[in-house]
Amino acid sequence: MTQRITVVGDGGMGTVCALMLCENGADVTLWSAFEDQAAAIQQDRVNTKFLPGVHLPDNLTATADVAQAAKGDLLISAVPTEYLRGVWARFAESLESDTPICSVTKGIENHTLLRPTEMLAELVGEDRSYAALSGPNIAPEIARKLPATAVVASCDASLAQRVQDAISRPYFRVYTNPDRVGVELAGAMKNVIAIAAGIVDGLGLGSNAKAALITRGLVEIARLGVAAGAQQETFAGLAGLGDLVTTCISSEGRNRSFGQAIGQGGNPDDVLASMTMVVEGVATTRSVMELAQRKNISMPLSQGVHDILFSQKSPREVITELMTRPLRGE
Amino acid sequence: MTQRITVVGDGGMGTVCALMLCENGADVTLWSAFEDQAAAIQQDRVNTKFLPGVHLPDNLTATADVAQAAKGDLLISAVPTEYLRGVWARFAESLESDTPICSVTKGIENHTLLRPTEMLAELVGEDRSYAALSGPNIAPEIARKLPATAVVASCDASLAQRVQDAISRPYFRVYTNPDRVGVELAGAMKNVIAIAAGIVDGLGLGSNAKAALITRGLVEIARLGVAAGAQQETFAGLAGLGDLVTTCISSEGRNRSFGQAIGQGGNPDDVLASMTMVVEGVATTRSVMELAQRKNISMPLSQGVHDILFSQKSPREVITELMTRPLRGE
Repeated sequence: MTQRITVVGDGGMGTVCALMLCENGADVTLWSAFEDQAAAIQQDRVNTKFLPGVHLPDNLTATADVAQAAKGDLLISAVPTEYLRGVWARFAESLESDTPICSVTKGIENHTLLRPTEMLAELVGEDRSYAALSGPNIAPEIARKLPATAVVASCDASLAQRVQDAISRPYFRVYTNPDRVGVELAGAMKNVIAIAAGIVDGLGLGSNAKAALITRGLVEIARLGVAAGAQQETFAGLAGLGDLVTTCISSEGRNRSFGQAIGQGGNPDDVLASMTMVVEGVATTRSVMELAQRKNISMPLSQGVHDILFSQKSPREVITELMTRPLRGE
Repeated sequence: MTQRITVVGDGGMGTVCALMLCENGADVTLWSAFEDQAAAIQQDRVNTKFLPGVHLPDNLTATADVAQAAKGDLLISAVPTEYLRGVWARFAESLESDTPICSVTKGIENHTLLRPTEMLAELVGEDRSYAALSGPNIAPEIARKLPATAVVASCDASLAQRVQDAISRPYFRVYTNPDRVGVELAGAMKNVIAIAAGIVDGLGLGSNAKAALITRGLVEIARLGVAAGAQQETFAGLAGLGDLVTTCISSEGRNRSFGQAIGQGGNPDDVLASMTMVVEGVATTRSVMELAQRKNISMPLSQGVHDILFSQKSPREVITELMTRPLRGE
């Protein structure tokens, strides 16, 4: 029997997930929060706003109708963290009680410090199964069918395998992993380091500096992650190191691009205002530093990004501080 | 009292080490295997062949005289693996018995499968102290005083600290680490993955693919390293992950550039013949696969590079094999 799968959220990652699910023969609904956007996708067979130039197959239906979208056998949540609460509150009434949800959102909610699947459990019930899919997944590259890999994490192994089967393609290799906490935290926290990587690029500091940033960045991300209940190994894997690397090196990453504009002298608020896509890392920086404080974990690099974004410190000042701390063992 | 330090080897890394040692006030000798090259450096105050455009300070003396060079209080070995045996055999007689040596060479000798400091111990005695310095250190970037980090490893903690003090600069942050085996193996093995990264670039496969390569590459490097006596943590550090990342992303890395030319369709032998600098990764690929066989460790990515370099397999063929293995847990 053909599976009905709904992707809630029409951003780049949601759209490319819908595309792969379609290629595997599912009956796919792509839900947009906006009537006109859904109608345009449905008619033009392309998501001009978030994944331009990519043809969407006939077994994809775009809609803004919540009741229709809620009917899937499996739901993919691809809504940015800041809109997640508002969107899923609208789905709560229409959803069947046992439909599993796989989240591809990369963030941590401000103040509550909840991960996306924790927010979902609060909004649409704790009894259904949840999974999180993450990895080095710049959406336009996947849409071009360039080889990529990902991890799907769930304590419900049958759900992890179901998502793995539904979305794996010859060019998209999906591994399973039981550590949903680690996969979600890694995916969120790497965006803070990606902003730092962009700043390094904007200042023209070179590959040695960026490699050091990635290495020490992963150390501090993993430290906080483990304190918050994640498994250390997850951070050495595709959702940890892998996603961190692609976000820090890809010219298409928006968190890195945001950082680059700041490194080139832009004011963080002005740069942010000029961007059309959500830069998850900005809000995540606040959440990460709040979580680090609660867990009493030292995160010098994330703190540096926080100082630049919210305390008007200059990038040069932060880098000089980081490079001139006392020498010590690794 | 001013320290006399000799750098044996006038490649990019040797020269930039000499430069930093000079900046810290040491009396530095840079030894070249070639009379004319030593004379040119001594007269022009620049190493036109291996570090063009970088002025060398007055407290640096370039020489090809072994007896003069052997007089240092501390020696830095910066000779490519394939020339290391020949060069240090010439130093054996002139060296005092207790002069410590710090190696910056990144390779594993073919057939013997010895690390650089193991080769040195064989050539100039096991009783002196040895250290290995490694990390994300593309030499021309360091010469431009862009921020960089490194690790110096020795079981002799006082030697590690001595090298740390001698070479650390405000723009070059050196950490100590007790795991010389891991630091040397990581530095060698990453060049194999760097060739693969170049192939990925040459084929235009994008950042997601490169990030997956770096992640899975580090896993297999660490697996072999631990089997050969290294500490797991070293591979998550600057000499492991850090060096791997910079080598895989820098446009100036020669192993990556070599791989890129192959990815663009070049024949490995022809590409190699056209390069002026030593591409350590080619010989290291043979050593790594021989070591992997001895230790019975699976290294699918290094094996893929080996197949492309020495068994005429095409890059596309190798990548298709890697992407289409059965799906599984991470």
